[in-house]
Amino acid sequence: MSTKITGVGSYIPKSVAPNDQFEQHSFYNEDGTKFGHENSVIIEKFKAITGISERRYISDEMTTSDIALFAAVKALEDADIDKEDLDYLIVAHNYGDVKHGTHQSDTVPSIASRVKHLLKIKNPRCVAYDILFGCPGWVEGVIQAHAYIKSGMAKKCMVIGAESLSRVIDQHDRDSMIYSDGAGATVIEAGDDTNSGILSHLSATYAYDEAHFIYFGESNNQELNDARRYIKMYGRKIYEFAITNVPGAMKQCLDESGCNISEVKKVFIHQANEKMDEAIIKRFFKLYGEEAPADVMPMSIDKLGNSSVATVPTLYDLVLKRELDDHEVNPGDVVIFASVGAGMNINAIVYRV
Amino acid sequence: MSTKITGVGSYIPKSVAPNDQFEQHSFYNEDGTKFGHENSVIIEKFKAITGISERRYISDEMTTSDIALFAAVKALEDADIDKEDLDYLIVAHNYGDVKHGTHQSDTVPSIASRVKHLLKIKNPRCVAYDILFGCPGWVEGVIQAHAYIKSGMAKKCMVIGAESLSRVIDQHDRDSMIYSDGAGATVIEAGDDTNSGILSHLSATYAYDEAHFIYFGESNNQELNDARRYIKMYGRKIYEFAITNVPGAMKQCLDESGCNISEVKKVFIHQANEKMDEAIIKRFFKLYGEEAPADVMPMSIDKLGNSSVATVPTLYDLVLKRELDDHEVNPGDVVIFASVGAGMNINAIVYRV
Repeated sequence: MSTKITGVGSYIPKSVAPNDQFEQHSFYNEDGTKFGHENSVIIEKFKAITGISERRYISDEMTTSDIALFAAVKALEDADIDKEDLDYLIVAHNYGDVKHGTHQSDTVPSIASRVKHLLKIKNPRCVAYDILFGCPGWVEGVIQAHAYIKSGMAKKCMVIGAESLSRVIDQHDRDSMIYSDGAGATVIEAGDDTNSGILSHLSATYAYDEAHFIYFGESNNQELNDARRYIKMYGRKIYEFAITNVPGAMKQCLDESGCNISEVKKVFIHQANEKMDEAIIKRFFKLYGEEAPADVMPMSIDKLGNSSVATVPTLYDLVLKRELDDHEVNPGDVVIFASVGAGMNINAIVYRV
Repeated sequence: MSTKITGVGSYIPKSVAPNDQFEQHSFYNEDGTKFGHENSVIIEKFKAITGISERRYISDEMTTSDIALFAAVKALEDADIDKEDLDYLIVAHNYGDVKHGTHQSDTVPSIASRVKHLLKIKNPRCVAYDILFGCPGWVEGVIQAHAYIKSGMAKKCMVIGAESLSRVIDQHDRDSMIYSDGAGATVIEAGDDTNSGILSHLSATYAYDEAHFIYFGESNNQELNDARRYIKMYGRKIYEFAITNVPGAMKQCLDESGCNISEVKKVFIHQANEKMDEAIIKRFFKLYGEEAPADVMPMSIDKLGNSSVATVPTLYDLVLKRELDDHEVNPGDVVIFASVGAGMNINAIVYRV
C-alpha cells in the first residue's frame, strides 16, 4: 500500500507588492526605538538575507478560505477524481479568515467546512477539519492523511495549506516584508504500489524553550497605543534553531526511508528565508559528507515571499508544472518535503514521485 | 490491539454565573428589535428548553491554554504515565486564546504548543497540534489519536478539549446564556486487549446547506455599531439538524461496533441543550424499537452550561469519579461518546470501558 499525491493546485494572488512599496514605512525596533538607517538600506539588507524582492497579497474582498478554494479546485482537476469521493478535507492555516479592515480571526465554522461548502460537496462522510501547526501545517496535514490511509480510515484526502499573512502584519515591523499570502492544495490517495509515495516521515514540536519564538504581539510603534496584535518573531533565534535542528531531522527521515543521499533529486523546503534555507541544505548534505548539488533546492521566495503553510505545496506545484526555472521532477524521483515554523515545529517527508 | 482512554481530567472554572445574572441584560432579536418580554420570562423559557440554571466562566487572568493545562495535569496523573512518553498532544478548541478585555484570537503558537510548554515536556517527538472541528473537536481528536495508534505512528496521545466561550459572547443575544467555559483532557493509549477501547467510530461534516448554522457575527444590538463579532447560531435550524441526523449516525456507529442496543450503558453526549439531547436519545433508541432507559444519559448542562469541546470529556470525568448523581461506569461497560456542532459536524465513538 502507498500514499501518493495525485493532484496539486495552487493559488498565487494577483497583487504584487515589490520591496520599494516599503520605502515610506516607519520602521521601529522591538523596543519602540526608531531604526537607525534609511529604509533603502533596510530593504537592501532585507533582500540580501531573505532573498525576497516581492510578495503577493490577496485582494480586499477575499479571505483565506476563498484562496483555499481556488487551489482546491485546481488540485481536484489535476487528480481527476470526483470531489464526492473525498474522505477527508484538511486545511492547515494559522489565523483563520481575517476580513480586510478587521482584525478578528474567524474560525467558526472551520476553514475546511467553508471550503467544503464552496466546493459544493454533499457527501457528509467527507470529514472537514482544520489543523494549526505553524508553517509546517501542510506537511503535517499530509502526514495525517497518511495515517488515515495507513489505518484504513480513508482512501482519498484533500490537504490544503492556505494563509493570508497580509491581514496580520505590523506595518512598523521590518519583518512585515517577509510575509505573503497564498494557497496550495493536494489530493492524497491510497495506492497499490509499495515503492512509491510516502517512504518515511518525521514530525517534532520544540516547545520547552522555543514555544514563543513566533508569537502574537503588539506593534513596534508604541505610539499606536492600541491593543491590536500582529504576527511577530524572534528572527535570530529562529534562524539558529532551524539550522541546528532541521538538517538532523531531515537526515533521520531520509535514513528511515532507506534511500541514499545521492538519490535525493529535490528538496522542497519551506520558503522562510533564503539564507536560512541555504544553510539548512548545506548542513543536511554535510551530515553525509556531501556538498549540496546546485539544483537540488527550488526556490520561489524571491517572487512569492513567505506564505506560511502555502509555500511547500505551491513550490511543488510550480516545479511539477515546469514553471520554475529549469526545475523538474519525474516519476521515480525521490524528493523531500521539509518545513519549520511556529510551535516551534519541524517536519519532513521523504517521497518517491 | 486496542485504543483505550487511560486517564481523564477536567477543569471546571470557579466562577459561577447563575441565570439571574442576565436579569439586567438588554436582549435584542437578530434583526435588532427589542425582545418583547421581560428578562425574567426570557430566562424562564431559556431554562425550560436548555436545562441550564448556571454556567462557569474562567477568571480574568486566564485563557483557554491555561485551563487546558489544568485538565492535562490531572489526566496525566490519572493515567500515571511519564509525560515525556506522549507521542501526540492534540488540543481541540475553536477560538484560541482570547485574553480578557481583548477580542483577537491568539492561535500562534498553537494552544497545543502552549500546553506542551506549560507541561514542561522536553521530548521534541511529542507532536503538538490543534484541531478546529466545532464542538465535536474532542471526540474527533480521540478518533485522530486512534488513527495514529492503529497505523503504528503512536502509542500514547493526549487529547484535550478546551474552550472559553465567555470571551466571544454577545451580551445582547439571548443565546449568550448557553455558553460556558471548561476543559477536559484524556490520555489515549495503545493496548493489547482487542475487546475493549474504541470499538467503532464515525465522523461527518454537513457543509452543503449547514456550514454557517453556527458562525461569527455582529452584535444583536445594532446601536453598538462596532465591527466586533461574536459567536452566533441559528438555534432552530441546529435543533432540527441535530435531531434529524445525530440518532442515525449513532445507530450506524453502534451497528458497526457489533454491540447490541441493550448493551449501551451510558451515552455521553455533547451538552448543547437538554431538550435537544433528550430528543436525540429518544429517537436513537426508537430506531431500535426501544425506549431510552431513564439513567442512560448523564447530564451536566444544568450546572455547567455548554462549554463546547469540553462537555464530553468533562462529563465522562465526572461519571468516572462518581461525582454526577448516581451515574457510574465500570470495566466492560459499553458507552457512546457523541457530539454535534459547528461545521456542522457530527461524530460518535462506541467504546468499551
